[in-house]
Amino acid sequence: MAAPDVSVVLVSPRNPLNIGAAARAMSNFGFTKMRLVNPYDLAFREAKSAVKSNYILQQAQVFTTVAEAIADCDLVIGGTSVGNRDLHLPLHRLEAGGQILKEHKGAIAILFGSEKFGLSNDDISHCHWLYRIPAREEHASMNLGQAVAITLYELCRNPDMEIARFEAVERASGAELERLTTLLQTMLTEAGYINERTSVTSEQKLRRLVMRLGMPASDAHTWLGILRQLHWKMKQNGS
Amino acid sequence: MAAPDVSVVLVSPRNPLNIGAAARAMSNFGFTKMRLVNPYDLAFREAKSAVKSNYILQQAQVFTTVAEAIADCDLVIGGTSVGNRDLHLPLHRLEAGGQILKEHKGAIAILFGSEKFGLSNDDISHCHWLYRIPAREEHASMNLGQAVAITLYELCRNPDMEIARFEAVERASGAELERLTTLLQTMLTEAGYINERTSVTSEQKLRRLVMRLGMPASDAHTWLGILRQLHWKMKQNGS
Repeated sequence: MAAPDVSVVLVSPRNPLNIGAAARAMSNFGFTKMRLVNPYDLAFREAKSAVKSNYILQQAQVFTTVAEAIADCDLVIGGTSVGNRDLHLPLHRLEAGGQILKEHKGAIAILFGSEKFGLSNDDISHCHWLYRIPAREEHASMNLGQAVAITLYELCRNPDMEIARFEAVERASGAELERLTTLLQTMLTEAGYINERTSVTSEQKLRRLVMRLGMPASDAHTWLGILRQLHWKMKQNGS
Repeated sequence: MAAPDVSVVLVSPRNPLNIGAAARAMSNFGFTKMRLVNPYDLAFREAKSAVKSNYILQQAQVFTTVAEAIADCDLVIGGTSVGNRDLHLPLHRLEAGGQILKEHKGAIAILFGSEKFGLSNDDISHCHWLYRIPAREEHASMNLGQAVAITLYELCRNPDMEIARFEAVERASGAELERLTTLLQTMLTEAGYINERTSVTSEQKLRRLVMRLGMPASDAHTWLGILRQLHWKMKQNGS
């Protein structure tokens, strides 16, 4: 699924460090459209960001009003920590709001308010709905750069990955594990750990022990080498 | 579901600002156990964080080795941007790794490497598995505070919320909408917008128009007042 067409709109950001952090998160997740409404520090273009995200700051657009910044967007939403329930706008948790954004076909603007005051009532009047990141009610106010990062992460999050847990780690084959089990049994018999009389059940226990290791294929050879070395040393001492 | 018992372990963090940002994200999402391994700047306790998260910095524990920092944890994982495939550790995307952590009952340590170098091979040798935040491969290296924030967000994320999109916004009742529709029809008839002959179909069209507004209950009274005022003005002018 293609990422939604999102402009990150920072309204009256005060701290160039946060603008830089927002740009970095945008670059991390592949979003390039940064828009600034009345940034407090017009030297923001000198703000440092990670080298790889400087292009985002350089091509950021500056506006004097929210109306201008969102003029070409057909869905405008705002991040809030307090809910602004008295504004009677729909309020989504990010998990749900993110789904709507992922399914939206047109241009989207996400408004982030200033570090100190958040979005004003006037800013919010431009929004179709609001969302909040599910932070604790007792401390819901988030750092601007972190709020941008979490929001964009949610947009790139792939729910299919919850099921497909492991990225391919090739496991040792049955034949490799059997070689290991066999050698280990020989060694343990020689060492007196395994009783000759009960060796059949012991072999089964041992095999299950080895299977449960979940050994990667790339390590099987190393483990076999280790055991062979130990076996050689055992026999050397025993002679 | 209770949040997992997670210690956030920052290994050799260089920048007190990032330690403060990590503490703030921890407080936002309700995690309190911060552990620092060899922080570069021992004055980190003077690092500023948001006022509400200073308690996390104050009770942060400092260790000289990773082994000490994780001694009481039975699951140790590490965040990485590069994958470290040559280390043959399982590598999960955060979406999947987060599920494992949410289901884990014991104490968990999540290791975050230094801003400059990430986790060293030695740090990683303490980990059961690694995870990566699904950033672009071309720019996968994330800011430390943002990486902590996104990771903790994933742990607090509630997948049920993807379906339950709207938090309750009470919609206007049928009776309120009918009062609006009736008044509007009267006005539009008086204004010559609705033709007497076709007024039945017009009424139905009008009702559907009003229904589609999705008007919140708290706004219905205001809209009715607006229409009444306009109606009064219309009649005043017409008399």
